[in-house]
Amino acid sequence: MILPTVRLVRGRVELIDQTLLPGEYRIISLATVDGVCEAITRLRVRGAPALGVAGAYGLVVSVEERWGGDGHIVDASTGSNDSGQAHLEGLPPSVSIDEVRAVLRDAARRLGATRPTAVNLAWAIRRMEGVYESVHADARALVAALVIEAVEIHREDVAMCLRLGNNGAELLNDGDAVLTHCNTGGLATGGFGTALGVVFAAVESGKRIHVFADETRPLLQGARLTAWECERARVPVTVLVDGAAASLMAAGRVACAIVGADRIAANGDTANKIGTLGVALAARRFGVPFYVAAPSSTIDRALAVGSLIPIEERSPDEVRGFSGVVAAPVSVGAYNPAFDVTPQDLITAIITEAGVHTPPFDFRK
Amino acid sequence: MILPTVRLVRGRVELIDQTLLPGEYRIISLATVDGVCEAITRLRVRGAPALGVAGAYGLVVSVEERWGGDGHIVDASTGSNDSGQAHLEGLPPSVSIDEVRAVLRDAARRLGATRPTAVNLAWAIRRMEGVYESVHADARALVAALVIEAVEIHREDVAMCLRLGNNGAELLNDGDAVLTHCNTGGLATGGFGTALGVVFAAVESGKRIHVFADETRPLLQGARLTAWECERARVPVTVLVDGAAASLMAAGRVACAIVGADRIAANGDTANKIGTLGVALAARRFGVPFYVAAPSSTIDRALAVGSLIPIEERSPDEVRGFSGVVAAPVSVGAYNPAFDVTPQDLITAIITEAGVHTPPFDFRK
Repeated sequence: MILPTVRLVRGRVELIDQTLLPGEYRIISLATVDGVCEAITRLRVRGAPALGVAGAYGLVVSVEERWGGDGHIVDASTGSNDSGQAHLEGLPPSVSIDEVRAVLRDAARRLGATRPTAVNLAWAIRRMEGVYESVHADARALVAALVIEAVEIHREDVAMCLRLGNNGAELLNDGDAVLTHCNTGGLATGGFGTALGVVFAAVESGKRIHVFADETRPLLQGARLTAWECERARVPVTVLVDGAAASLMAAGRVACAIVGADRIAANGDTANKIGTLGVALAARRFGVPFYVAAPSSTIDRALAVGSLIPIEERSPDEVRGFSGVVAAPVSVGAYNPAFDVTPQDLITAIITEAGVHTPPFDFRK
Repeated sequence: MILPTVRLVRGRVELIDQTLLPGEYRIISLATVDGVCEAITRLRVRGAPALGVAGAYGLVVSVEERWGGDGHIVDASTGSNDSGQAHLEGLPPSVSIDEVRAVLRDAARRLGATRPTAVNLAWAIRRMEGVYESVHADARALVAALVIEAVEIHREDVAMCLRLGNNGAELLNDGDAVLTHCNTGGLATGGFGTALGVVFAAVESGKRIHVFADETRPLLQGARLTAWECERARVPVTVLVDGAAASLMAAGRVACAIVGADRIAANGDTANKIGTLGVALAARRFGVPFYVAAPSSTIDRALAVGSLIPIEERSPDEVRGFSGVVAAPVSVGAYNPAFDVTPQDLITAIITEAGVHTPPFDFRK
């Protein structure tokens, strides 16, 4: 099952507004770079691989926003089964390649600044830069190449997740219960999923898998999104507060834990949603295998160790409240890093589309 | 500062309705055993030591409920500065000691069944039983002895917490940051606190202490109650989601973690609010001392190890939502144990009113 998490439709980014799930399933259409930036910052779209796709499409939007509107320039439509196409007659002949490049550079700067930890966003923007800085024919050729590259990033993501899922599915047995943290399914990617994609791939191969989903405070991506995706895919799921994961593992009730990643350092240290480190520590204590599942694009080969990964600190309001209800005294301060770093020695294996990597990890080249 | 967490006023139990904090500070007055049971079950009053006091007072309420009303029989008023008094003229002369005892036994059964994990509730009820099963003079003498015992349990709790706090305060240095889990302050006890009482005692002795309070899902006692108590006591406090505690300790930002306990086995294994085990595991990994602070009445000397402690499983609704807001799909199941058990080898010291116990722990006698 491939979800329409993020798509390019008539020069706009269409995405499932994940802040409304599971109560409401709404597709929103974004015609401006500011709109895409806002959607990323507010986590309407989130998940490292999905951010890469959204960032690439966001760059395409910048051209449509400046010179076209509603597919006047970029009449592309993408999704799991659609082809990327660009009909560029709408781009005024007077527009120079330098003008297009200036718009793209500005959009790349704004999109890249939205969220600092997930490496896939920066990676996708760099790939797009590689295109728009290297095409020298004319403005239309540049935009055409840009659309092709963005759609290719999306297609690769889906194909990569399917390969990753199949690689990881080999590690699961029929009847296993699997602990997950945050959301790493179709909603976190171009449509299929990483850690949760491993579960879906195992289920599709005929294995019965039960998911225990950490609710994942503060924004409850586990309770809201993972539970929603599992129910939609008819995979049995039980939610739990993050603090209950250690007790679940102590009771021997899960066969393994599988989490995603927002950035992996060259030595295997892994930045992922806040709370992942606690899952890894409990898994180690109680002899539960702890797997990280992420595309190779999540690996930051230039970064030697996890302590060098920049960690995004988010608003105290996320901690003081719960789904719109304020729980804590409004005057109280909050510590709210979006991610933590799990040291490589706590990781049993890192699953990518290339295979299952076991320690010692060395991703320097 | 002693909070009026639970008191006996004119034959009723008066308590701060903790489900309304921090938004509203309301004292409720309970004239029936059912009302007291409901308040315990719904966590209007919670915290192992406070439950002991509430249980003892609940037994007194049973007599007033059956034969009196509004202090007609038990005109006692207690609090930190009040004396316990019983004016028993209201008890009809025709009432036999066996009738009183039958009412008390029934109340003891109902109160004792409300929450299975906290040993203090069972312990307080047993102390009260020791009185009403051993007085043989007449009904009025029995009730008089009952009131005296209940008030004594309350007074001992406050005195015990003050001693415990002073013992623990020795372990804190000026300028320390302390991580707490759940609420272990005046609201969890007869009025002063256990783990948070240690912080208050250190502050009263002139040390500057910063509290990092785990919010403590599902019911957010940390964000709601610990933050409220700290602000009230002018102790600087920062809240965090439970999943962020490991990252906080990894960053070296706390000098120690101090938690309470609902039951301690003879070998030191400690049942406490769900999520405590994860705090202990992270503390061990990052070299942070992990202290348990609890009255001796929390120690269940008859229980050899923690795996024998019964763990209360609560409603899935607590996990699926908070304060009436539902976050997860309503159809999804939840794993919701109220407590977990931290193995004794993860505990640096157990602080009681008797002193600071270090490993190896042996509480068999």
